[in-house]
Amino acid sequence: MSAASLLPRVGLGVDVHAFAPEGSRRELWIAGLHFAGERGLAGHSDADVACHAACDALFSAAGIGDLGTHFGVDRPEWAGASGSRLLIEAARLVREAGFAIGNISVQVIGNHPRLAPRRDEACAAMSTAVGAPVAVSGSTTDSLGLTGRGEGVAAMATALVVAEEENA
Amino acid sequence: MSAASLLPRVGLGVDVHAFAPEGSRRELWIAGLHFAGERGLAGHSDADVACHAACDALFSAAGIGDLGTHFGVDRPEWAGASGSRLLIEAARLVREAGFAIGNISVQVIGNHPRLAPRRDEACAAMSTAVGAPVAVSGSTTDSLGLTGRGEGVAAMATALVVAEEENA
Amino acid sequence: MSAASLLPRVGLGVDVHAFAPEGSRRELWIAGLHFAGERGLAGHSDADVACHAACDALFSAAGIGDLGTHFGVDRPEWAGASGSRLLIEAARLVREAGFAIGNISVQVIGNHPRLAPRRDEACAAMSTAVGAPVAVSGSTTDSLGLTGRGEGVAAMATALVVAEEENA
Repeated sequence: MSAASLLPRVGLGVDVHAFAPEGSRRELWIAGLHFAGERGLAGHSDADVACHAACDALFSAAGIGDLGTHFGVDRPEWAGASGSRLLIEAARLVREAGFAIGNISVQVIGNHPRLAPRRDEACAAMSTAVGAPVAVSGSTTDSLGLTGRGEGVAAMATALVVAEEENA
Repeated sequence: MSAASLLPRVGLGVDVHAFAPEGSRRELWIAGLHFAGERGLAGHSDADVACHAACDALFSAAGIGDLGTHFGVDRPEWAGASGSRLLIEAARLVREAGFAIGNISVQVIGNHPRLAPRRDEACAAMSTAVGAPVAVSGSTTDSLGLTGRGEGVAAMATALVVAEEENA
Repeated sequence: MSAASLLPRVGLGVDVHAFAPEGSRRELWIAGLHFAGERGLAGHSDADVACHAACDALFSAAGIGDLGTHFGVDRPEWAGASGSRLLIEAARLVREAGFAIGNISVQVIGNHPRLAPRRDEACAAMSTAVGAPVAVSGSTTDSLGLTGRGEGVAAMATALVVAEEENA
């Protein structure tokens, strides 16, 4: 095995969901947390952009596909699954493929919800799901773009994994 | 040499191209693949956002400039070069600068083309160009923003490289 | 300590600021550099998106909060601090938390200022602030989106850190 194949690998994931129409009964879920009383995001899933971006970052770091590969429409058993459940399964699949998970960093970009008061809780919820450190931070875009106009919420994540034999 | 200078290094790259006007004869190239019958992206180059983002991620990880430094208007020999050719050259330059390439992760964000049916092919094409694992995934932005309105396609990439002496 | 806890860690940060209104006296600061004669960005701070994104990438890699945690409104001693000063302090806090800083990669996305002529200077300024290699690159979004319409400037950063004991 070449030296390069023993290096850690990085992955990236981005997800965006639109806010549900006014009057919708959609609940807001971000980073595995329920934000009571906040307008929900639209989607077939729970629209948890932080968990979805983290799943894609993990899959991409390990080189084993993406959200659609593992949880897409031809995998009906995952229809409606929460972001947390998808993240638990993504971490399991990445380890099953022979990788240890180093960490994940996620930034949630949007006007709502305010993440700061629940940032520690968000880190804890996602770290528990993954079984490795997940840092969650929040940011806004100064009233510009899709998140700044309040049309939706975006999340970007990066993950680091390493082939298990490196740790043998 | 300090311990920190022996660490792997990460890099990030983002690229966006607008779709060519209706009736344009531009071909669509993404991740080194030709998507026949799909509306092309505008640009002086082939507008392969996935390859361009990957080049910038590599250059930035190695700390040796960016796309403009190496392939800009003062380097006319690269005018019109395909994304694949640029990526091959970027990988060569990064190795020439003394780095091994660990991996690259690219996410293509847009309504078209549908990447999923050709995802494996995209990973293979880019991995061959780089000579290291490249994972390509696809995502959309729920009808929001420049990609969701179908104005263009974006790609974001992250790369990991390591100074060769670390593998000696 | 498990093997995974000894791995390098990656972090991600994104920041966006809007251009100040026409006629504003705001100065433009990007990557710790002053761009004389260019329209400034709005904000309570100097709106240095490159330094802010780099801070968030560092904090997130180390798992110690985000810009708001360390420099937010309940930390008035940092009100009005330059991006460079925030970056110096962020690097200090990350090392105080037990991490060595490997490198940071930042991409500045916008129509103005033109970064290319001062790219080397930008890398030097940010590397000095951090005490580790920081690569700065520039990109545009082909006239699309908030940066392409010239409404503001965005920056995205990724950072790699490692727990000190790994280098012992």
